[in-house]
Amino acid sequence: MDLASLIREIPDFPVKGILFRDLTTLMRDPAAFREAVDALVRPYRGTQVDVVAAIESRGFIFAGAVAYQLGAGFVPIRKPGKLPAETIRVEYTLEYGSNILEMHRDAIKPGQRVLLVDDLLATGGSARAAVQLIERLGGQVIGIAFLVNLTALKGVDNLAGYAVYSVLDM
Amino acid sequence: MDLASLIREIPDFPVKGILFRDLTTLMRDPAAFREAVDALVRPYRGTQVDVVAAIESRGFIFAGAVAYQLGAGFVPIRKPGKLPAETIRVEYTLEYGSNILEMHRDAIKPGQRVLLVDDLLATGGSARAAVQLIERLGGQVIGIAFLVNLTALKGVDNLAGYAVYSVLDM
Repeated sequence: MDLASLIREIPDFPVKGILFRDLTTLMRDPAAFREAVDALVRPYRGTQVDVVAAIESRGFIFAGAVAYQLGAGFVPIRKPGKLPAETIRVEYTLEYGSNILEMHRDAIKPGQRVLLVDDLLATGGSARAAVQLIERLGGQVIGIAFLVNLTALKGVDNLAGYAVYSVLDM
Repeated sequence: MDLASLIREIPDFPVKGILFRDLTTLMRDPAAFREAVDALVRPYRGTQVDVVAAIESRGFIFAGAVAYQLGAGFVPIRKPGKLPAETIRVEYTLEYGSNILEMHRDAIKPGQRVLLVDDLLATGGSARAAVQLIERLGGQVIGIAFLVNLTALKGVDNLAGYAVYSVLDM
């Protein structure tokens, strides 16, 4: 199945000059959603993954299914003020603007093996921030999986030293 | 497994007087996350579900896994300005404040069978708004599934006429 053909391109969203990749046209297709999740899971079958961590909001969609398939727990990484208990936070810059991400201080136990899952790798800023949060809690990032890698933005360079996997390189 | 015992109660979040049910302590536990997804899926096994719709952001986590398990597509219902293509919207009141939800106009084809999945039923305002959006697109809401129903808030009354299912009544 040609998953890439199901991704809709939206010029100038959310700001002028950005060509937004809209994955909703892929996700609404049952066979494509299934194949995307299967492809995200495949490299980690037989690997111990304690928890899957994902970045709000779109990252949650694929990551929930991946966590279930791997028999892992799920840990959300969220925008400020959303998590109700004690948090740690990191500020970072992204493709358009800057942002803060938070995790619950008790989200991960030291030594746990964590797979970070997100829908799309652009510059890698948010994934880099997520890795920092996971490691501050003592988690071991055993991999970072994206459905789409926008290779021209060289996000992988921002994640040097980590095992980055992407289903689709565009 | 006593899923309810894994839910953390946070007083006065996000505003004074609200006892927030924090499901992150349940989701981070692999066995509990698996059991929660299985329980959400069980009533719909053998039923045709074309797409699972879910409300940003926490609803995405369970709903992604449910969609995968049911062989359905996934459709996000989001806060304003997040969906990049043409949208329809509805404004509604919720437990604390008011809100707007949007769906892509082409998210659902007329006649498709839609299961709405969310983590928690409080007053039912956001689920009610989601149902309105789905029906304006011609979707048929074949069920609304929640992990938790806060029964004292009588959210089911706001969803009269729909097949509401909840895993945990609290």
